[in-house]
Amino acid sequence: MSATQASVSVAEFESIFESVKNWGRWGPDDKLGTLNYVTPDMVRAAAALVRSGRRVSMAIPINRVSGPDNPNQATLLVVQGHDVPVDGSKVRFGLDWLGMAAHGDCHTHVDALCHISYGGLTYNGRRAGDVLMSNGATAQDIAVYAEGVVGRGVLLDLPKYRGVRWLEPGEAVTRAELEACADAQGVEFREGDFLVFRTGHHRRRLELGPWDNSPPPVGEGKAGLHVDAIPWMHERRIAAFLPDGDGEAVPSVVEGITYPIHPLQVVAMGMLVSDSLQFEELVLACEEEGRYEFMVVGLPLRLPGGTGSPWNPIAIF
Amino acid sequence: MSATQASVSVAEFESIFESVKNWGRWGPDDKLGTLNYVTPDMVRAAAALVRSGRRVSMAIPINRVSGPDNPNQATLLVVQGHDVPVDGSKVRFGLDWLGMAAHGDCHTHVDALCHISYGGLTYNGRRAGDVLMSNGATAQDIAVYAEGVVGRGVLLDLPKYRGVRWLEPGEAVTRAELEACADAQGVEFREGDFLVFRTGHHRRRLELGPWDNSPPPVGEGKAGLHVDAIPWMHERRIAAFLPDGDGEAVPSVVEGITYPIHPLQVVAMGMLVSDSLQFEELVLACEEEGRYEFMVVGLPLRLPGGTGSPWNPIAIF
Amino acid sequence: MSATQASVSVAEFESIFESVKNWGRWGPDDKLGTLNYVTPDMVRAAAALVRSGRRVSMAIPINRVSGPDNPNQATLLVVQGHDVPVDGSKVRFGLDWLGMAAHGDCHTHVDALCHISYGGLTYNGRRAGDVLMSNGATAQDIAVYAEGVVGRGVLLDLPKYRGVRWLEPGEAVTRAELEACADAQGVEFREGDFLVFRTGHHRRRLELGPWDNSPPPVGEGKAGLHVDAIPWMHERRIAAFLPDGDGEAVPSVVEGITYPIHPLQVVAMGMLVSDSLQFEELVLACEEEGRYEFMVVGLPLRLPGGTGSPWNPIAIF
Amino acid sequence: MSATQASVSVAEFESIFESVKNWGRWGPDDKLGTLNYVTPDMVRAAAALVRSGRRVSMAIPINRVSGPDNPNQATLLVVQGHDVPVDGSKVRFGLDWLGMAAHGDCHTHVDALCHISYGGLTYNGRRAGDVLMSNGATAQDIAVYAEGVVGRGVLLDLPKYRGVRWLEPGEAVTRAELEACADAQGVEFREGDFLVFRTGHHRRRLELGPWDNSPPPVGEGKAGLHVDAIPWMHERRIAAFLPDGDGEAVPSVVEGITYPIHPLQVVAMGMLVSDSLQFEELVLACEEEGRYEFMVVGLPLRLPGGTGSPWNPIAIF
Repeated sequence: MSATQASVSVAEFESIFESVKNWGRWGPDDKLGTLNYVTPDMVRAAAALVRSGRRVSMAIPINRVSGPDNPNQATLLVVQGHDVPVDGSKVRFGLDWLGMAAHGDCHTHVDALCHISYGGLTYNGRRAGDVLMSNGATAQDIAVYAEGVVGRGVLLDLPKYRGVRWLEPGEAVTRAELEACADAQGVEFREGDFLVFRTGHHRRRLELGPWDNSPPPVGEGKAGLHVDAIPWMHERRIAAFLPDGDGEAVPSVVEGITYPIHPLQVVAMGMLVSDSLQFEELVLACEEEGRYEFMVVGLPLRLPGGTGSPWNPIAIF
Repeated sequence: MSATQASVSVAEFESIFESVKNWGRWGPDDKLGTLNYVTPDMVRAAAALVRSGRRVSMAIPINRVSGPDNPNQATLLVVQGHDVPVDGSKVRFGLDWLGMAAHGDCHTHVDALCHISYGGLTYNGRRAGDVLMSNGATAQDIAVYAEGVVGRGVLLDLPKYRGVRWLEPGEAVTRAELEACADAQGVEFREGDFLVFRTGHHRRRLELGPWDNSPPPVGEGKAGLHVDAIPWMHERRIAAFLPDGDGEAVPSVVEGITYPIHPLQVVAMGMLVSDSLQFEELVLACEEEGRYEFMVVGLPLRLPGGTGSPWNPIAIF
Repeated sequence: MSATQASVSVAEFESIFESVKNWGRWGPDDKLGTLNYVTPDMVRAAAALVRSGRRVSMAIPINRVSGPDNPNQATLLVVQGHDVPVDGSKVRFGLDWLGMAAHGDCHTHVDALCHISYGGLTYNGRRAGDVLMSNGATAQDIAVYAEGVVGRGVLLDLPKYRGVRWLEPGEAVTRAELEACADAQGVEFREGDFLVFRTGHHRRRLELGPWDNSPPPVGEGKAGLHVDAIPWMHERRIAAFLPDGDGEAVPSVVEGITYPIHPLQVVAMGMLVSDSLQFEELVLACEEEGRYEFMVVGLPLRLPGGTGSPWNPIAIF
Repeated sequence: MSATQASVSVAEFESIFESVKNWGRWGPDDKLGTLNYVTPDMVRAAAALVRSGRRVSMAIPINRVSGPDNPNQATLLVVQGHDVPVDGSKVRFGLDWLGMAAHGDCHTHVDALCHISYGGLTYNGRRAGDVLMSNGATAQDIAVYAEGVVGRGVLLDLPKYRGVRWLEPGEAVTRAELEACADAQGVEFREGDFLVFRTGHHRRRLELGPWDNSPPPVGEGKAGLHVDAIPWMHERRIAAFLPDGDGEAVPSVVEGITYPIHPLQVVAMGMLVSDSLQFEELVLACEEEGRYEFMVVGLPLRLPGGTGSPWNPIAIF
């Protein structure tokens, strides 16, 4: 599609929003959203997927250098090196300090439900200004996931399905293509699964270098989901969404809404969403292990009040 | 023991240091240290411990308030709330920013091997000033653990063994007591195991409030390991050490070395060490599940150059 | 006065608030508040006070160590030392990074008018939520003082007047005492002057060590102004208030309002207020130069959106 | 000159270095370097230049947005807005937090003498690794300028002299041109003066937008001084150098040394140097006031250990 690809109206967007809304489904004080789909039995079943013991990281190395898709680079500072005595002994400590935006543009992170609002409301219909105060979130913060995000991950590898290196910026993966890709790979989704969604965003970055992900004409955009794939996720009771890029097709297919996927997932569905993963090691492992399913463990920092967290989720085969 | 409990000389300390030294054991460019003990088979076996699917966090909630044991509190700042328009639509984003010391005194974190030096050398005999430059670590950084720390955890619950609420500050757990505790609990350690070591430090903090952990007379000190327990860990090929507190008994049992456990573990052995965990949910889970062993997953941030990382390791039963 | 010294009701407080209110005085879009009193002629006259060329700093050295009156210590981090090559030459750069709260409790800083609100309104009757958004101030920010704060400073040295080392925590200086002190020192205040107000707060800190400034019984409080001194400042058209401590007497003399001086000065009057100065070098200079008046120059950072700024104002004799 | 304009050898550079070296001139423990030239009498004389009382800032507004010449943007974060109650009263506080690199590329700042080394030595022949430790500077830090930088500033306006809007990137102003410009403007330099050096860097940025200042072919470079102007400054006993840009002509005229001006000024001469000023208001004021001389006041933060400081120096006419 082109930079003027918007073909979905706000009214259609809001119709999807209503149709996938989980508000009240798990009670007015629900914390976990779609992670409620994941029962202890499913955790056990996910662990039972561990057969070879092979592990791969799905995180991008945290980037300390500013760039066109990374204007808010992380800051890692050595506070004390081994040149500083600490007591009279031969022991010395090196210390550092890390500063980073929770939602840094090309840092792998996980969103809290307070992160996004639509029409002044967050997930479950809470008033956004009460949920996220200027000094931190009072509810729906990232600390609700303290016990970690554990379940069965299933990879849909769109570039492999299409026979390309990566999807081009602006391309939006529809429901029909998701289904066709799953069929081609021979995988089925079950309630509580984690959709690991690969557009090849990170491979393109590795090969062509970073680019500005904002909409044309300023930037080049990025590949992601079409909004019509959201009901597909809702019907299957997908518990978590783990994309490279951030799942958004830019320019957007929805008129006037730059990032329509996040409000549908986070606000309407209460879905666990992660941004900016990479699957370079994962695709190799899937190929060598001969399967697209694996145990996923992601562990957000236990950070009360946070709108998100950097993290390093892994797949275990 | 008292504030003047030092009963081990530096010479004895250095003798232990030599006896547990793994330098060169896994080659001159080794990255993983004692995590080399953990084979893929052990990862599979750890996953096989997942039976109920129950999970507990072993992290302390990240603390944004300064205190006597937390002078370097974390900084969590809301960069943008839902009061700020982002485009013409009804979508709004809440964003925050996190700043924290890698080795913050009461934040749960994991140490990189570059974190500590003894006599100018880090693990494997590398020159400390080359390993950790003023702009970050060039080797032995926390990113070497990108695939995560996964294995079989075994809890030794010293307060339960002694029949107390917690060990008092200054108390040092000896090899003999570790062995007796393991016997009493009916657990055995195998090569590649993670020692989950509970002194009750965090419970004391919850009940009595935070205290200054530095040596008397300035502070009250803390409970930890006696250095004679280090050879016990070395002989058993323990792969990781996960304590509440940080494993150090303060005041130290070694004359003139305030923190002797860390250099023995990190510099001599190349051991994966975490600091400032809490086991309040874990002890309850162990009791209810009727076992002291469980799958442990800890996922350091994928942070090139870092001397450590905040993290949120979990136990899965 | 005692910890239960509150003798002024909220109604009386609000009556003072109304009586000193400068809202609209310099137009609805006024930026400078009481600094409008300072004409270019007064700047010239202040410069004419420079006779010996002697200069003293009125700032406390920025404090990187946490303490009872400094829970939000500044962070100064060396980003790069001289151990890191930058090009093939012999040139090397040391770089650092500074993080600090604008209103850090014992860091010398200057307040922007957006810093404080009363009843939801800031100076000039602006809605606080519009003036200070979650991503920065849209008006009344510290950058309005980009041309600096320059004028005639006059010291009132209360400890010297009373013949004590310092005023004790909780003591509140009344209008009557301000007048008596000025008479005893033989100084007069003119429109546009800066009141340099010394309680000896910093000298007490230097001699007795830091203490918790919060109200008893948690802390010890601090010495400052009585609210009845505010109309005195208003009548004299004082342009700026430069105290050690922060001008607040703690516990407060106003029932239920912990910090009544700031809203009167900043919200009602639009006054330029600085916090946490120190006058150790200044009192010596005043004595040796034989006068209590001097040129003051204070230069806030040119920081759009900021609620305040660290600064280092000086007196020139 | 072109991107391959290097016409000065390292040997010639080092010959200049030796010829302008002030090491030992003010004793082995000197703190102030060329600011020693400024006597109290000169401060008085500078204050006597204040006739109209007009003031202008020479700082660029601190920039929170990343850009090609500003990869290390400042971070300004609202910690608490007026949506957060603080006590039971109607008083509320807005708080923010500032993080920034001391030497941020397009932030107006002043360098400490510890900032730069040549051949492992800083000003006065101190070992760089002792002066700047990994936890801060032990000497030659920015706090030595606590009493501020005050003196007579004289503007040399090169674009006006040449009759252009700005000097183009890469252009290097020689001693001969400095002298011709001073003659054309009718100004003379005296011992202790501050050279305010305008290339039009900031005007170019305002009109054409930011550009990458690094050497071609990566960036476009920037205009600055030729190294042959350094002895001119040394002979005249210039006390401080206040340029737009940072005084460096990029690409460098010295073979293999990317930034030759800073080591000559800071390391050899011990000169007070500021970077990244702007003179848009200043040139207008000079024109309207009919003179190129004025009182300058610059106030570094009182920051022990710092390699530099953001600041907002002003000119007073």
